[in-house]
Amino acid sequence: MGKPDEVKLLGIWASPFTRRVEMALKLKGIPYGYLEEDLENKSSLLLALNPIHKKIPVLVHNGKTIIESHVILEYIDETWKHNPILPQDPFHRSMARVFARLVDEQIINVGFISLAKTEKGRESLVEKTRELIKYLEKELAGNDYFGGKTVGFLDLVAGSVIPFCLERAWEGMGVEVITEEMFPEYNKWVKKLNEVEIVVACIPPREKHILHMNKMGEKIRSA
Amino acid sequence: MGKPDEVKLLGIWASPFTRRVEMALKLKGIPYGYLEEDLENKSSLLLALNPIHKKIPVLVHNGKTIIESHVILEYIDETWKHNPILPQDPFHRSMARVFARLVDEQIINVGFISLAKTEKGRESLVEKTRELIKYLEKELAGNDYFGGKTVGFLDLVAGSVIPFCLERAWEGMGVEVITEEMFPEYNKWVKKLNEVEIVVACIPPREKHILHMNKMGEKIRSA
Repeated sequence: MGKPDEVKLLGIWASPFTRRVEMALKLKGIPYGYLEEDLENKSSLLLALNPIHKKIPVLVHNGKTIIESHVILEYIDETWKHNPILPQDPFHRSMARVFARLVDEQIINVGFISLAKTEKGRESLVEKTRELIKYLEKELAGNDYFGGKTVGFLDLVAGSVIPFCLERAWEGMGVEVITEEMFPEYNKWVKKLNEVEIVVACIPPREKHILHMNKMGEKIRSA
Repeated sequence: MGKPDEVKLLGIWASPFTRRVEMALKLKGIPYGYLEEDLENKSSLLLALNPIHKKIPVLVHNGKTIIESHVILEYIDETWKHNPILPQDPFHRSMARVFARLVDEQIINVGFISLAKTEKGRESLVEKTRELIKYLEKELAGNDYFGGKTVGFLDLVAGSVIPFCLERAWEGMGVEVITEEMFPEYNKWVKKLNEVEIVVACIPPREKHILHMNKMGEKIRSA
């Protein structure tokens, strides 16, 4: 049987990329140790484990280092096969991966509306964000989650970024981007996500998170 | 047994992202129809199949549309399981995915050295490219291919981009970025790749490709 698995996660409390990895570990019921990093003052462990990108999250499993949140989620799903997070069918897997990239490569970029320096810039970002959310709205139609009846890969990726990160930033700046009228499926999904104990257990504390997002926006804008 | 698979690929002759998908289909021995696209004048089929990104490559398999080259390669590997292109071990799979992202998100960006407007800018891009190629050099040590003894996922991703695209651009502008002395493992790997019939069959014709890369560089620089 060998020794039990040793699993360590290096992350940041406010990082959606870390949050989703914790969600996946909890969904699989994998015990792990968590090490909080400080991006202003990265640990020598982080620099040693991820010399290429020097970024969190980093997963260490029995001495092997896995980086980048999508890659880590795939690794977790391939290593512990119970409670699968990716769909089984290759086509549905490909859709989950494509939409996960849409979230991390596009929605996250336009969604930091607080970074726009002008009112017009903000309006344009709000509009672009809505255009992209429309694709998710369509994917969700008729389903509880992106994964169907249970939380899966795309729920973790999109959930960590949109309702539990971007929407908090928007709330902090008093901008309404996604209304229930505009995106009923999306809003139903967020309510369902909020019922999943394992997801909720990994979300950063609300008020502290909003303050953090406000500060981050200010800092980047004035840089 | 059902009907035979219907596989169509929409792509561009000079696109490394298309080339690697063709290589994967040929490695698996999957018959497919190829449709050459014109990015200046995209076909209505491309726009209909990939309304989100409007980009090639697009794979259509029995009426299902799969986009983005990494996602397509994973789909091909999951759908036709013979001649696997990703390693079987989850950790090695994760490394292949991380390095594939390094190629497409970083090396490709710094590698378009022709886009620098100044001599100093060029030198800096050459240096950055070499820094990144070092990671690949280390991965290759002691192996014929990234996949070990046979061509795999990362060979297709890195091969399509570096020796069979960027190096041609560098040749066209008379810049030597990767010498045999600096990167012996890399150069050994390129020689091995050039021995793989299926890979060679998918590479764009050399002279035409160099001219194309030159023109592309000029066009982007003057935009």
